[in-house]
Amino acid sequence: MSNPDIGRARKRAPVPSDECGLVHAAAILGDRWTLLILREAFYGVSRFDDLQADLGAPRQALADRLGRLVKEGLLARRAYRDQGQRERHEYVLTDAARALAPAFLQLMQWGEERVGLEPGLKLVHAGTGLPIAFAPVDSEGRAVGAGDVRVIIARTGEPL
Amino acid sequence: MSNPDIGRARKRAPVPSDECGLVHAAAILGDRWTLLILREAFYGVSRFDDLQADLGAPRQALADRLGRLVKEGLLARRAYRDQGQRERHEYVLTDAARALAPAFLQLMQWGEERVGLEPGLKLVHAGTGLPIAFAPVDSEGRAVGAGDVRVIIARTGEPL
Repeated sequence: MSNPDIGRARKRAPVPSDECGLVHAAAILGDRWTLLILREAFYGVSRFDDLQADLGAPRQALADRLGRLVKEGLLARRAYRDQGQRERHEYVLTDAARALAPAFLQLMQWGEERVGLEPGLKLVHAGTGLPIAFAPVDSEGRAVGAGDVRVIIARTGEPL
Repeated sequence: MSNPDIGRARKRAPVPSDECGLVHAAAILGDRWTLLILREAFYGVSRFDDLQADLGAPRQALADRLGRLVKEGLLARRAYRDQGQRERHEYVLTDAARALAPAFLQLMQWGEERVGLEPGLKLVHAGTGLPIAFAPVDSEGRAVGAGDVRVIIARTGEPL
């Protein structure tokens, strides 16, 4: 038994798939049109024709994703009627979708850094106007350097 | 002209697609297998056979995504050889992919809350062991309540 790799157990993810929030998130969000539709919804673009014009998505792809997002409780379908027009629907973020805002802001910032873009959005404090960023904070409200953050596997207590 | 909606301009996203980091992120990450492969890589699962066993992905789907992630600079392909075996490759996160950690942690937490799961990972301070969370912080390092955060469209200065 001079080879430590003989009989090597397969390396498995320390958080099993069905217990992993990221797997559940990926099941809904792992789709390009879905991410783009939610992006539009955060920007206040809610009507089918506006979504289509902004995204250039095939109508059927758009309709499929909107239906799925409604079914999953991330968009709410709301009737409206322009004067002289038939009733139509628009799609607005639910609270469950609004809870994605921090994740989307992080993804947006990652995309900007990757491509070398100026920030499209800025976060500021409503009172002071000071710039705001998402950063690690300890349980006493103090900002913590990224190098001081350790990730622990909750069910084993071991470091990742 | 009694109808304010006649001639209504289409509502468009205030950050155009090609200037939006989220659109660039979605182009790479808007794919379920891609998200799941990166998740495995964060967990240290790096070999093709281990990835396949953990994900249950079709070999071709996995090979396609790994190839794309290498091409996009998110995974680095590294040779290894177990004793008596042919040379094989494993796939490890690049710095560009590691920069996704905060976004992935946010997505994971969102998925946990959505499904009602216990946290799979915990963040703690390396020195004090105190729990850490990502939270809005102003430019002087003070944690800010979520209700005090305003999102501004950078190129117009208007609130989102």
